[in-house]
This record gives sequence, structure tokens and C-alpha cells, in this order.
Amino acid sequence: MLTRTRNLDLMALRPLAERMFDEVRALSFDGVGVTRESYGKGENAAAEFLRNLAQAEGLKVETDRAANLVFSLPEDDGQAPAVWCGSHLDSVPQGGNFDGLAGIVAGLLCLIARKRDLAEGQARGGPPLRVIAFRGEESAWFGKAYMGSGALFGKVSPEDLELKQRNSGVKLGEAMREAGADIAAISARQALFDKSRALAYLELHIEQGPVMVARELPLGVVSGIRGNVRHNRISCVGEAGHSGAVPRWLRHDAMFAVADLIMRLDEHWRALLERGIDLVVTTGVVSTDAAEHSISRIPGRVDFSFEARSKSIETLEGFYELMRTDCKAIARDRGVRFEFDRRLLSDPATMDARICDVLSAACRKHAAPFEIIPSGAGHDASLFANAGIPSGMIFIRNRNGSHNPDEAMEMDDFMAGVRVLDDAMEGLA
Amino acid sequence: MLTRTRNLDLMALRPLAERMFDEVRALSFDGVGVTRESYGKGENAAAEFLRNLAQAEGLKVETDRAANLVFSLPEDDGQAPAVWCGSHLDSVPQGGNFDGLAGIVAGLLCLIARKRDLAEGQARGGPPLRVIAFRGEESAWFGKAYMGSGALFGKVSPEDLELKQRNSGVKLGEAMREAGADIAAISARQALFDKSRALAYLELHIEQGPVMVARELPLGVVSGIRGNVRHNRISCVGEAGHSGAVPRWLRHDAMFAVADLIMRLDEHWRALLERGIDLVVTTGVVSTDAAEHSISRIPGRVDFSFEARSKSIETLEGFYELMRTDCKAIARDRGVRFEFDRRLLSDPATMDARICDVLSAACRKHAAPFEIIPSGAGHDASLFANAGIPSGMIFIRNRNGSHNPDEAMEMDDFMAGVRVLDDAMEGLA
Repeated sequence: MLTRTRNLDLMALRPLAERMFDEVRALSFDGVGVTRESYGKGENAAAEFLRNLAQAEGLKVETDRAANLVFSLPEDDGQAPAVWCGSHLDSVPQGGNFDGLAGIVAGLLCLIARKRDLAEGQARGGPPLRVIAFRGEESAWFGKAYMGSGALFGKVSPEDLELKQRNSGVKLGEAMREAGADIAAISARQALFDKSRALAYLELHIEQGPVMVARELPLGVVSGIRGNVRHNRISCVGEAGHSGAVPRWLRHDAMFAVADLIMRLDEHWRALLERGIDLVVTTGVVSTDAAEHSISRIPGRVDFSFEARSKSIETLEGFYELMRTDCKAIARDRGVRFEFDRRLLSDPATMDARICDVLSAACRKHAAPFEIIPSGAGHDASLFANAGIPSGMIFIRNRNGSHNPDEAMEMDDFMAGVRVLDDAMEGLA
Repeated sequence: MLTRTRNLDLMALRPLAERMFDEVRALSFDGVGVTRESYGKGENAAAEFLRNLAQAEGLKVETDRAANLVFSLPEDDGQAPAVWCGSHLDSVPQGGNFDGLAGIVAGLLCLIARKRDLAEGQARGGPPLRVIAFRGEESAWFGKAYMGSGALFGKVSPEDLELKQRNSGVKLGEAMREAGADIAAISARQALFDKSRALAYLELHIEQGPVMVARELPLGVVSGIRGNVRHNRISCVGEAGHSGAVPRWLRHDAMFAVADLIMRLDEHWRALLERGIDLVVTTGVVSTDAAEHSISRIPGRVDFSFEARSKSIETLEGFYELMRTDCKAIARDRGVRFEFDRRLLSDPATMDARICDVLSAACRKHAAPFEIIPSGAGHDASLFANAGIPSGMIFIRNRNGSHNPDEAMEMDDFMAGVRVLDDAMEGLA
């Protein structure tokens, strides 16, 4: 009886969910997609909107020491171990509206349903629910991911705080301080999240790849999250020269050298896939030097990013070594040199087996087609999992990939995911 | 006796040459190198300085219908066929001071020497000398080379006039009009240069490659000029996506596709060189889309430039076809497409055999070590040669290549070149 009431309540909240998505989209629309800069304008606007909406619903809204928003029932004094549920506020430039936001909206719907049940005298048993809206999950802005969740677990270093925003050049530390974070504590790598007050961490997120659409699965239960190894910037330095006047044997063309590297990585990647090894490789940012490049000038410098992702830390380390070895060979062959910025490593994470079972049971209960699938993309959940907090994720089917304006999540799929999430919270009690 | 006097006079003008180089450098220094934008600020400043200097020397300065500066003796009524001598005012961004300017200064020294001889009653026989300072030779600004000289021979099309300046976005037609060019005539591709009034065209220029330094040659006599085939912008369009969530077999990575193309071009190039074919290949500008690229996003679009240069038009056409064929194969293999802007072709040019002999004789007379060498870079001289005007070029040794701030021409070498130039003018009479 109680369960049915709750589920009806949740479905009744669909218009509220649509309003949240629409209004946050309008606040962060950039003419092409949505832009919610980490610790910047779009993210602030989304945070402010959600804070006001939650307060109007009678929820308590606090800011943690890393400037993330924490939503809870006013009756929750924060002492009892809770089920935490959340995702991130920010987006990539010209990104999609659901990446991150869907998980926050899902958590808020569950919390608002509890608040409304409570107002009608239908208090639920079990642990409290706390919803967390992370800032700064996307690496697109400062070249580092999981800043908001990472800061809670001492994973943001003083060096990280010196990273600069891609457009404004503002340092991460300044931007976080501006948003209200305790920079001294973060810089000292203090643990700002009390693990003893977390029973579990749950995150609903759109799938960011094409697998669920291809397999016609509205929902997915995530088994684990790929880690990655990255350089935000590797500079290949050759020798600029007049494009007509320098013969091939005297050239030190930085662009040909980088193309050579990318094709070698592509070859290794193909070979590793044939051996069944999990890996993706991306050079998302590549550019000749805009201050001096021209059609008639041999590029003397090319800056590029490097990223490899895998479920296996051994694969990440092995592929990284291959890349460094290729750079050495190309440097020798082509008379260039490669300069590396700081290497960034995010550990792969495994989701909690019991939580996977609870989520799967909830999917089965509601007859929602689902599969256990790995996450290629990284998520805040990996920070919780690697901190030892039992964690789980639900993926929602999403067309056209992610990190682009064409993301397309169906509200039916989303609401089915919210129902599974809500059920799972009860199951974890 | 007269020759000796002239040569002494010319050498006496070395401080004047140094002053011209120094002052034009100061007017166009950008903090790194010199920046003399075609039809823009730095080029205008150089033109204004030279106009004032020449007028102070008693020379006549006019602007032709393409806004190039023409310097002559006041006694020259412009009717008699003349020996023309010139080079270009503009530079690439952060370029060197001597590229172009050296040829103008050389011509002006010869003209000033004649003016001073005349003032001392030592009128020379032979044809008049006219010095021309071209605007807009560098393709770096509007994506097209030889705008100033090309306009004289109907080689600037209405389409070209729509090209936009790389920084300001101002159209070439507007910029030329602003500088005083007759856009209606240029657009109608009228011949603005009266070939019947040109006996010959001579150009002194720094070498822009490493050959003369390697061979310890202060001077070079140019046998011919490479042509080129270009696209200012080819766009490779793939599909953007989340770097962690899309497996290799579903990717349409525009950057991997462009790297693939560059490596295929490199392979063809190497194979053609082994067969003794003259060719250089450059992709001077390559960039993922700055509005949307990030380390965690598969590049959905990469823009790049393409240039091949050769002494042979057949090689240019053949290599161009190879490139298009590669693009088709890569489009098929990687699920991307290539979009091409307008193809630009500059014909190779052959320098006049008699002028080469005259220049060689002058080098020998002054015991200046020299060789006959081809020009890898393009020059305004190719427009004159291809218009049927007997043309010749002298190269001056130059360290550290060109199109960069580290160009290093020695004044001793330069003055030796000016002496050869002056002698050759007499030889052509």
C-alpha cells in the first residue's frame, strides 16, 4: 500500500522534472547547446535555480566545504548514516542538458516525494536520503575532472588548484573559493566527507555511448567505471620554416610528427582490441600555434591533448608507456621534441555487487528491460567507490551520445530510472 | 671610371640601407618579430616611411592602380620601357624583417645612387629604372598570395576579393580599396600593368631555405620558382562524442582521420622524392574546433590547410589527385567527410635565361661566390615571368629560414647583392 502510494507520487512529479530540465536548459543555453562552466556562470545559475526550487518545496539546502549543494529533509540532522544520491551541475561547452543534471533531478524527485509523503503523515522508515549536486565534474574547463567530488576525498592537490580556466584563465583555487569552497582545507587534502555518515552512494546518469540505444535498453545497471590517464597538453616542438623553401630531409614539421604519433597510437589500439583489451584513445584538442601558423609556414609547434581510458589500470599504464616510447622514436626520426605537462590519472572503479543486485531487482520488479553494463565515461560515483563507500549507478538510455547538444533522453526512460532509484533506496535500508 | 664611381656610391649607401631596415623594423615590431599585415597597419607604416624617405631623396613616388608604390626619377615620364625592380612590403605574422623589404631597399639604393649621380652631373645612359613596392604578397593574411602583383595582371578574381582577413575578417576587396586600389578594374580582371613599358623585372630576395648557408654561398641566381596548389581550409567532419563512451568501431574521429591523411601524404611524398621528383608538402594550419573541443570529446570537426609546391605543374596536379583520392578512401574507412574550399593554383615560373647570364656575369665580375639555384618559395617575380616579361632574381644568403623572427641576413651579403643588381641593370640596357 505504502509502496504503491510512493510510486504514484513519483510519477506525478514528472511535470516538475520537466520544469526543472526546461528551466535549467533556458538558464544555460548558449545558442547551440548548454554551457554550464565549472564554478562559473552556467553552473551558478543552475545551482541557484535548484536551491530556490528545493527551498520552495520545503527542503533544506546546504553547501558543503567543497561548494557542492546538499539537499535533505529539514528533519534530517545530518548525524545518521544516509543513502547519498547525486550527480553534477556542470556541462562541457555546447554540451547537452541531461549530462549530470538528470542525476540531480532524479535525486530531488525522490527527496521531494518523501517530503510530500511526510506532509501527508506518511513518514518512511529507513535511512535518510541526502542529495548532492556536485560542481566541477567536467574536465573541459580546468583540464581536471571530479573537482567537486574529488575535493571531498582529498583528491584535489595544491597543483590542481593552480590549473587555469580555458577561457578566462582564472585559477581553479580562485574559482572554487569564489563559489564558497574551503580552499585551505582542500589544499591540505583534508577529508571533507564523513564516510561514517554514508551507507551508500547512488547516481543516475544518461549513458554517454551508443550501447543502450543499439540494444534497446531503457535502463542499465553499471558494473564499473573506466579510469583514464591524461595529459591536457603535450607540446610537439619542431622547427618553423618557409613551406616552399625547406626540403623534406631538412624539415622538423611538428604537425607531421603529431600525425605520426596519432597513427602509431591508432595501430597499437587496434592491436590491443584484437586481444580483447578494454581501451579507448582520444586526442580531443590538437592545434598548430594560432599566433604564428599560416598555410605557408611549416608548423614549429603543435599542442595536443592525450587521453586513454580503460577498466584496467594495467592497460592504462601499459598504453601510456607505449605512447611515451613512440614519442621518443618520433623525436629521433623527425628531429622534434615532445614536452609533457603533468600526467593525470583517474583510477578505474568497481560498483558494489550488493547495490548492483538491489538495482537489478528493482528493474525486474518494474519490468524495465536492463543489462549490467560497464561505464566508459567517468563519474563522481568512482570517487565514492574508491573511497570505500558502496556505490551504484543507473544508466538511462540516451540518443546521439553526450558532450554535444544532440543528447536525447526520453522522459519515459528517465521516470522509469527514478522509480528504480527510489525503490533501490528502500532496498538498501 | 663611371662604373667605379657608381660602385663606390652604392657602398656608401650602406648606412642608409641599415637605417631603412632598422626604422621599418621598429615600425612593425610586434614584440617577437615583425608583423606587416597585407593592406593593414604594419604594411601601411612601412609604405609611409619609404614614401617619405624617397621623397626626401628627391625621388618621385606614385601609387599604381593596385595600390603598390612605384618609385622613379622625377625625370622619368613613365613612357620609355624601363627595367623594373621590386619586392613586397608585407610580412607574415611574427615574421622577419628582410623577407620582401630587402628587395625594395635594394631597388631604392640603386635608384638613389642614380639620383645622386645625376645631381653631380653624371647622368647614366640606358633605360630608366622603376622600383616597385608590392603590397599583399604573403598568403598568411587573406589566404592568397601575390595580391598586389597579381592585381596588375588580372590575377585577382571577384571571388578572391571576398576572402577575409584572418584576424579582422575584413574582406580583401575592402582592404585593397582602403589602400587606394581600383577595385572595379581589378574585379574586371583588367591588365593594370603596361607590359610594353617593361624591359625586364628584377627582384632581390633573401633565400628562405637552408641551401645557401649550407653551401657557403652569399649570392644565388634563381633559375625558376616553384608553383603551388593549395586549399586554405579543408574541413574533416566526423562525429563528436564522449571520449570514454564510444568504442573504436563506432567512432568517426575527425582528428584521427586527418592524421591518417597526413601520414598517407607523407608516404607518397617520400616515394616521389625517391624518384627524383621536386615536391614539398605542408599542412601549416591544423586545428580541432576551439568552440567545442575538449580533452574528453572525440573531435567532430578538424579544419586544416593543404599545400604542395613543385617546379612541375604535372607534379602539382598529380599529387593533388592523390590527395583527393586519399580523402575518399579515408572518408569511406573512417566514416567522415572532407569539405574543400576553393582550390588555389599558382603556376611555376621560369626565369629568363639571358637575365640569368647577366646576373651570373655580374657575380663573377665582383668575385662573389654564387650558384644557379631554384626558388622553393614563391615570389612576385613569377607573376612577371608568367606574364611574358623577362624576369630574374638574386637570392641573398640568410640564416634560420624565413617566415620567422630569426631570419639573419648579413649586410655584407646584401650589399654584394645590390652591387650585382645594379650592374645587371646596366647589362640589360
